Amino acid sequence: MNCEIITIGDELLIGQVIDTNSAWMATRLNEAGIRVKQMTSVSDDPEHITKELKAALNRSAIVLITGGLGPTKDDLTKDTLCRFFNTTLVEDPKVVHDLTVYFKSRGRELTETNRKQAEIPANCTPVYNKNGTAPGMWFDFEGKVIVSMPGVPYEMKAMMDEIVIPKLSSLFRLPKVSHQTIITTGVGESFLSDLLEPWETRLPPYFKLAYLPSTGMVRLRLSCYQSNDSLEVQLMEEVKKAKLLIGKYIYGYNDDTPEKIVGKLLIEKNQTLAVAESCTGGYISHLITSVPGSSTYYIGSTISYANEVKTRFLGVSQEVIADKGAVSEEVAKAMAEGVRSTLGSTWALSTTGIAGPGGGTADKPVGTVWIGLAGPNVLIAKKFQFGNDRLRNIQITAISAFTMLRKEILGLPD
Amino acid sequence: MNCEIITIGDELLIGQVIDTNSAWMATRLNEAGIRVKQMTSVSDDPEHITKELKAALNRSAIVLITGGLGPTKDDLTKDTLCRFFNTTLVEDPKVVHDLTVYFKSRGRELTETNRKQAEIPANCTPVYNKNGTAPGMWFDFEGKVIVSMPGVPYEMKAMMDEIVIPKLSSLFRLPKVSHQTIITTGVGESFLSDLLEPWETRLPPYFKLAYLPSTGMVRLRLSCYQSNDSLEVQLMEEVKKAKLLIGKYIYGYNDDTPEKIVGKLLIEKNQTLAVAESCTGGYISHLITSVPGSSTYYIGSTISYANEVKTRFLGVSQEVIADKGAVSEEVAKAMAEGVRSTLGSTWALSTTGIAGPGGGTADKPVGTVWIGLAGPNVLIAKKFQFGNDRLRNIQITAISAFTMLRKEILGLPD
Repeated sequence: MNCEIITIGDELLIGQVIDTNSAWMATRLNEAGIRVKQMTSVSDDPEHITKELKAALNRSAIVLITGGLGPTKDDLTKDTLCRFFNTTLVEDPKVVHDLTVYFKSRGRELTETNRKQAEIPANCTPVYNKNGTAPGMWFDFEGKVIVSMPGVPYEMKAMMDEIVIPKLSSLFRLPKVSHQTIITTGVGESFLSDLLEPWETRLPPYFKLAYLPSTGMVRLRLSCYQSNDSLEVQLMEEVKKAKLLIGKYIYGYNDDTPEKIVGKLLIEKNQTLAVAESCTGGYISHLITSVPGSSTYYIGSTISYANEVKTRFLGVSQEVIADKGAVSEEVAKAMAEGVRSTLGSTWALSTTGIAGPGGGTADKPVGTVWIGLAGPNVLIAKKFQFGNDRLRNIQITAISAFTMLRKEILGLPD
Repeated sequence: MNCEIITIGDELLIGQVIDTNSAWMATRLNEAGIRVKQMTSVSDDPEHITKELKAALNRSAIVLITGGLGPTKDDLTKDTLCRFFNTTLVEDPKVVHDLTVYFKSRGRELTETNRKQAEIPANCTPVYNKNGTAPGMWFDFEGKVIVSMPGVPYEMKAMMDEIVIPKLSSLFRLPKVSHQTIITTGVGESFLSDLLEPWETRLPPYFKLAYLPSTGMVRLRLSCYQSNDSLEVQLMEEVKKAKLLIGKYIYGYNDDTPEKIVGKLLIEKNQTLAVAESCTGGYISHLITSVPGSSTYYIGSTISYANEVKTRFLGVSQEVIADKGAVSEEVAKAMAEGVRSTLGSTWALSTTGIAGPGGGTADKPVGTVWIGLAGPNVLIAKKFQFGNDRLRNIQITAISAFTMLRKEILGLPD
């Protein structure tokens, strides 16, 4: 079952917006057993949109379109589809009602411009939008399916998860697809592949392995298309075999993230966490608190760009900062211990370093980072030398800090 | 002058990798006066690659291809191009030399697999790769240009900036393209479009306006293709006219972000900022510190999930928290004033709210947020009612906080 994704918008073609919708949709489609054959981005040009839609329908049974559904003059997708299907726009009473409620709850009247959003091509089934004003449109056309959705990611994602994917799955009776992902950290892709070779070469041919490297981690995804219950059991067995070879680098599975893993462990052990950030500037705390329910184990943080903050809130002595420098083992330890004792948490993490692009010296170049960790009977700090990219340094420091904490909580060797 | 971008790789089509190359290339091409007509992603399938290459050449004079140039069996771009041009592979002596040096510097011999990377189609001009092992390939073909580059972003980017863009610019005397973007916040796309109607309908036909909504903001992009100095002046004049209609919603232009705008203002005025976050959990601080040079004006933050943190670090009284609740005007003000006086900053922002999905009550449902602001002779707090999505609530709170601060720094009315 092939599918194509067409994203519409001048902003994509001039590079102002990175198309993240296509990759997200592809992941969801893939999980549902639908293969994406091509992704195409075109500008808000009716003729070009129509041509590419025709070309996509020649190759694939499903065409998903995002973008160009807003209320303004540059949004042309709806009119273009109307002409393509040789039909007219009709007002959908449920959308009118939803729009009226939507604007009323925001203290506004429904304007004529917005009322036009309730108009949809006569031959489509509306895909209601619970997160915005533009409805999606489902077209059944010569045995094929075309769905047009808004380009706003969280509006499109809700439509995909709640309506489009379930409807496609029931319509095309799709084969079952199973995936298991192993998440590793602290090891490169090629070294991992060497370790896994004896296992990888013996993998059954209907299992497909992919290496997915990203900042600070490598994910290994084992997939089985046309799966069934017994193949699913076998998939889990293969994951266990891989674990025997690379267990020390594994920190989680599937949708786990470093911050979720640490959160689960803290809940299990009924422990708490506080953080003293410097070079990561709030990013570690942001990751922790992006997990729903993190208030159970997360107490709070300090972020100290100015050295006085370290002294004022954490009791780090001015002498140590003057003697050893703010980016030092001693300060990393004092920050972790300081925030732990002040806030009374079980564990505390600290970071101090030079994220860049400025601030580097010959002794402590950009990318030098100390991560501190304080806990029951433990106070350590570890030095890292990352690269020159500010945001990457911040991200990889956060992942390394969670990895250190996870190992200490579990009592694993470094 | 039209260009197309074709990105090749199974990892794109199954959503494992987000295609960031196309947007980056489009920005560079656009700056050089080259319009991107279409972006297409296809899998490592020779037949499909060839079809799309032909289609692209029918539409455009330039086709840039990335991906599929690695040393392994699944990299098929080079062979596919060879068949397309009906030519053979020849070894490029300079690439052999470069590869030998590359592997020697890493303590390795040049293997047969890697030596194959020095083979390029006989009819192409090599585009040497200073950051990796696979050379790019430039083809002149029936008055059109095809360039194939590696998919690794930093290898491709160096080739584009140093070789491809300069060569294209000299080859096709390119027209100038001008863009101006107005960034607004606190107003919906359709309301903005109503306000701008008298201006938008009178825009010269060679100016194109686009509305780009994202979380908490709408960007308006005014473009002029085939621009010249006098049209550029006219473009700026049109931006001024738009400003008269929607000035109170504008917070910046072009590449500005809320955190950059606030940073620039603080530097201009030689002022400083501290933050007391609760429901935003570090995200505001993360945005501030993701701007290089933010240490000039940013002092530090506290993040208080547990109420004790508010009391301990910020001097918020336990009685006020007990009486009014942690999510209240009084606590938001006390947090802002507390962090400002403790850290001695010019300005302080605070957030307290219910990000969700849990923690809501009838009185204070999920999405209830108070933002506090303390500064010279000002101490205010404003209530917001956002939605149900945790991350979106965090993001929109951050944008709203920066908007409040910007208005206070500039002494603008609310």
